[in-house]
Amino acid sequence: MPVVIQQAKHVSGTNITSPKGFKAVGIHCGLKHKKYDLAVLLSEVPASVAGVFTTNAIQAAPLIVTKEAVQNGKMQAVIINSGNANACTGKQGMLDALTMQEKTAEKFGLETKLVGVASTGVIGEKLKMEPLLKGIEQLDPVDSLEGSIQFSQAILTTDTVMKNTVYRMEVDGKEVMIAGTAKGSGMIEPNMATMLGFITTDAEIDSVHLQDALQKVTDVTFNSITVDGDTSTNDMVLVLANGMAGNSSLTPSHPDWDVFLQTMHAVAQDLAKMIASDGEGATKLIEVEVNGALTDLEARKIAKTVVGSPLVKTAVFGCDANWGRIIAAVGYSGASVDPAGISIKIGQTVVVEDGEPVIFSEEQLLLYLKQPEVKIFVGLNKGSGQGIAWGCDLTYDYVQINASYRT
Amino acid sequence: MPVVIQQAKHVSGTNITSPKGFKAVGIHCGLKHKKYDLAVLLSEVPASVAGVFTTNAIQAAPLIVTKEAVQNGKMQAVIINSGNANACTGKQGMLDALTMQEKTAEKFGLETKLVGVASTGVIGEKLKMEPLLKGIEQLDPVDSLEGSIQFSQAILTTDTVMKNTVYRMEVDGKEVMIAGTAKGSGMIEPNMATMLGFITTDAEIDSVHLQDALQKVTDVTFNSITVDGDTSTNDMVLVLANGMAGNSSLTPSHPDWDVFLQTMHAVAQDLAKMIASDGEGATKLIEVEVNGALTDLEARKIAKTVVGSPLVKTAVFGCDANWGRIIAAVGYSGASVDPAGISIKIGQTVVVEDGEPVIFSEEQLLLYLKQPEVKIFVGLNKGSGQGIAWGCDLTYDYVQINASYRT
Repeated sequence: MPVVIQQAKHVSGTNITSPKGFKAVGIHCGLKHKKYDLAVLLSEVPASVAGVFTTNAIQAAPLIVTKEAVQNGKMQAVIINSGNANACTGKQGMLDALTMQEKTAEKFGLETKLVGVASTGVIGEKLKMEPLLKGIEQLDPVDSLEGSIQFSQAILTTDTVMKNTVYRMEVDGKEVMIAGTAKGSGMIEPNMATMLGFITTDAEIDSVHLQDALQKVTDVTFNSITVDGDTSTNDMVLVLANGMAGNSSLTPSHPDWDVFLQTMHAVAQDLAKMIASDGEGATKLIEVEVNGALTDLEARKIAKTVVGSPLVKTAVFGCDANWGRIIAAVGYSGASVDPAGISIKIGQTVVVEDGEPVIFSEEQLLLYLKQPEVKIFVGLNKGSGQGIAWGCDLTYDYVQINASYRT
Repeated sequence: MPVVIQQAKHVSGTNITSPKGFKAVGIHCGLKHKKYDLAVLLSEVPASVAGVFTTNAIQAAPLIVTKEAVQNGKMQAVIINSGNANACTGKQGMLDALTMQEKTAEKFGLETKLVGVASTGVIGEKLKMEPLLKGIEQLDPVDSLEGSIQFSQAILTTDTVMKNTVYRMEVDGKEVMIAGTAKGSGMIEPNMATMLGFITTDAEIDSVHLQDALQKVTDVTFNSITVDGDTSTNDMVLVLANGMAGNSSLTPSHPDWDVFLQTMHAVAQDLAKMIASDGEGATKLIEVEVNGALTDLEARKIAKTVVGSPLVKTAVFGCDANWGRIIAAVGYSGASVDPAGISIKIGQTVVVEDGEPVIFSEEQLLLYLKQPEVKIFVGLNKGSGQGIAWGCDLTYDYVQINASYRT
């Protein structure tokens, strides 16, 4: 399950403009008090595009606009604002999202349908269009570390850190880069919850295969994290592949398809883990690995239920090896489990074996639980299903951040 | 939906021994440091019994023992300990639960199968049988307010208050009482989560009809509350009906069936609301009422999703009228909704009408949100389905209580 990439390499110090032909920038236009709040990503040429979107029945206006644009298979620019989600804003919200798309297209001389729109922030307040449109006029994307950092900063809300990752691989002997940046901190739950993710690559691949690849990796990465179980109205992950690496088009029969898929998986997993560990108020990343479930799907379901349990999350925050809460969450996950077959390890310490409590050193486990990354292993002895999910602890700061978000 | 009982009356100052022929007591036997931790409920004669139990796949030993006893249709005593859940305790745990049952039967000269067993507390630690068995020997249940209060105290864990309610009604012109007591504070989620409920009545009714009645009211009361979404391994609600009121046996064709059902509903709803408002760390009871859903089931699903959303819960704690989080939760509930048909009221203040934000006085709403009980109304304009769910706010104290529960 851990992603093994033999033919791709993580690259440090670079960014979403690393793949050939991408430019980005972020600025402050006036939706937030001081911080960057408007960003654009631009490809030199129209890129194949793929997207995954929130499953929430209430979908924000920009999401509806972008979903339609993605249908065309090509995208050349994405305009993003933070500070306001433009969700539940009625007909005016829809007009505002379309205006953002249109003005960005005009600014960069593109067809309107080649522009995607994303928004994140407070729900239910109308966008301040005046500063936003003035902001679009000022955007000057560049192919540099600086532009990319500004972009990554401008999409953040309550995040405390930027989330970036880049990998390099070879396709047809040519260098191909895949890079990603994301935002997300609260309202994070499977199935896309206020999370925005943007992945760029210079690989040549058509939008149908790109969509297949994205869907495949999303289930085991972005959809396997949870912060609070709330699913947002605005989530989306977009991948733009502009083909500037010059490889022959990637399809499942291409000899380098697997390495491409694995690399995309690695990019998405890096971003997903960064989002989970930057969960609102989080002090620790929690990883739950389940083995021996009936199916991979059931294993992921159990892993996500355990990592999403408020009682498990508070116990990890309190460095309390309260495995009873772990086994209770396994039990109510809805997956098929046999109590006598369950084993649980926290870090390297076995606490339950075949359904029976094991005597362990509380002291040693306390030391382990004080680490910034806590791993929980659950064995079920039912089948060969495997799955991993990521989340974070539940802390005083989560309550503080969310009790006063709007006021 | 609010329970209207025209022919039954809430009675104050009395308790679960109010129905004829019931005795109770609670004592400290040594499972907790100082507080009461062992209780027994005893009926003069074998009573018809009905029960609902946790849906968690991991079920505590006492639950398995009691489930089997309920199958017989009759119960005369229930033995309960707090401080230890006797869950995930393997084969020894099962033996211990059976010993509790057997020793209680011996003590009161009953058949073993007439005794129910319930436990609540920490998961995964073996019961200290020595103090527990000595405790059973000392139990001397009485038909008095004092015995009943001791009982109600002895079943508590992190609860801050006792939960009791009693109603009086007439069946065949004879006085019938229904009384209930419950515990539950954390791990509270639909489908029975560390919640124990005991309802006594002197009505004459067979166990099959009693089970029907209990099931019916459970869905709209105990299964409509949530504190943290965690479902426990130990939940159960038992009803004992000993027939000592002398009415002719209650069945759906009895002229007083409806009033009996409504009264049972009132008892269960009182207890459910008390549990929700005593949720761990809670400062407020939240009630969400949904109207206009496709079905009652969908309405309850939406109500429970909204009242269970950590973001809604923290917003209520912070007195923040952040209705965007309410509408987002409606959207991800999984129920069928039409964004343009949604209306939301917080107290008497309309904040969304037909999917469009409404301008309202933040000041006035802030005053409302400072009250100890917050009501949220969601209208969907899709059908005639109605439902209510109850929960509580998410506070610093929830985190504190649960980060240090075991240590």
